[in-house]
Amino acid sequence: MEVIEAVGELRSRIKEFKRQGKTIGFVPTMGFLHEGHISLMKKAREETDIVIVSIFVNPTQFGPNEDFESYPKDMVRDQRLTESVGVDFLFTPTVTEMYPDGYSTFVEVAGDLTRQLCGRTRPGHFRGVTTIVAKLFHMTTPDYAYFGKKDAQQVVVIEKMVRDLNMDIVIVPCSIVREEDGLAMSSRNSYLTEADRKKAQVLSQSLFETKAKIASGERDITTIKQFIVSRIKQIEGALIDYVEIVHSKTLENMNQIKGNILIALAVKFGKTRLIDNIDMVV
Amino acid sequence: MEVIEAVGELRSRIKEFKRQGKTIGFVPTMGFLHEGHISLMKKAREETDIVIVSIFVNPTQFGPNEDFESYPKDMVRDQRLTESVGVDFLFTPTVTEMYPDGYSTFVEVAGDLTRQLCGRTRPGHFRGVTTIVAKLFHMTTPDYAYFGKKDAQQVVVIEKMVRDLNMDIVIVPCSIVREEDGLAMSSRNSYLTEADRKKAQVLSQSLFETKAKIASGERDITTIKQFIVSRIKQIEGALIDYVEIVHSKTLENMNQIKGNILIALAVKFGKTRLIDNIDMVV
Repeated sequence: MEVIEAVGELRSRIKEFKRQGKTIGFVPTMGFLHEGHISLMKKAREETDIVIVSIFVNPTQFGPNEDFESYPKDMVRDQRLTESVGVDFLFTPTVTEMYPDGYSTFVEVAGDLTRQLCGRTRPGHFRGVTTIVAKLFHMTTPDYAYFGKKDAQQVVVIEKMVRDLNMDIVIVPCSIVREEDGLAMSSRNSYLTEADRKKAQVLSQSLFETKAKIASGERDITTIKQFIVSRIKQIEGALIDYVEIVHSKTLENMNQIKGNILIALAVKFGKTRLIDNIDMVV
Repeated sequence: MEVIEAVGELRSRIKEFKRQGKTIGFVPTMGFLHEGHISLMKKAREETDIVIVSIFVNPTQFGPNEDFESYPKDMVRDQRLTESVGVDFLFTPTVTEMYPDGYSTFVEVAGDLTRQLCGRTRPGHFRGVTTIVAKLFHMTTPDYAYFGKKDAQQVVVIEKMVRDLNMDIVIVPCSIVREEDGLAMSSRNSYLTEADRKKAQVLSQSLFETKAKIASGERDITTIKQFIVSRIKQIEGALIDYVEIVHSKTLENMNQIKGNILIALAVKFGKTRLIDNIDMVV
């Protein structure tokens, strides 16, 4: 595996492989890699000739009071992990390379898609995401790009950007990877105190219980939402940001449990905001 | 020459040439081609293996009270002209193909670069331009893209987008082509009445006279601006939108005539808004 910091070098290496007709798989990350990331890399390794992983903690997708400064890092471990999965290039650009002085171009998916769910609490977040992903796509020119479904809204927003801007890239959404107790893997789990780590089980538990309820016939959206909300509220210190049931492809509000549904939630434990979701076809 | 309307078909034809290692030259236009466009195509023809010209009157770059509906068209003549220059592909997508229902993604160069000059009178114009150009770039994957310097601000904005978003494309700005009497070629010249067509000479004339003044030592910005303004005001019915002297690379305001300068102006004759400019290194 080669670790590359400069865009120009990455580009010239990729062009070489493109000329040889090789397919490129790309996994953009913010580092502090976990099993979720690894599952993306493995899938890319299986499906494409050349696998590129980027690690870049992107300042433009963090709000002013969010955790950009404290976002966890462990480059040594990340390098070992990517190497062990058989990644070809680990791309680790600097902030100055990505956003030089005077930087001023943004890619934005407008409308409800980015205004609701996480977009409501994190204004500007998705603009930061689509901008950096567009940049990384232009740098890495992937045939396939892999994203985790834990960030369900991010997947839908990026698919929309790719479609609207006619990028010739296949977005591959990958299943959520969970800890043994159900907690969705996230670099931010490292922020949790031991007590909150235990309490955070309520996210996946309430989602799994909801899934069972729907499987056994429950179809009323209000009942289901209320169930999840009351289930989370039982946990001391759990502060609900949102609990929503939407169409999993369009993120539009549903008025019945039918078709492609996404049940998504965001909950804060202290300063740590966690998200989780399940999608179902009913 | 092949005329192609569908993105998918264009893409598959281009990929074939890319695989053969051919270079792609791209000339985006809104049609109703004139000598200015032809000079871009000829340059592309000289410098690249495969030349693609697009004709698309892009609704998102027109303001609500602008001339989108009445923008001149002559596809038969355009086809003949592109064919005669040796263009390989004429791409003529439909509005529905470019902006399908629910379209919502925009590329924007923020800040002064798009707020001043034409951006002041045409809010949203450059967002429309960068969005459509990004889309066309993703569709045509050019190595070189050719733009006329008559739209000087457009060239600077697109160069900024390409640089900021790390698009691997060389922007080639090409000299303004003028009518015999100096009027810069523009599809919009066709709107002019015979009387206004004559009056419109004042744009290029005032710029050439200014160039001569600077060549013979004039360096005072206020004096020069006032000269141009009073020169245009002598013409009955000429309504000045702006007369500006800025840095030709950054479009920043200058406080002296020195270095890379751009003298740009926009003037209305009736409903027809014309622009022109000269750049100089002083």
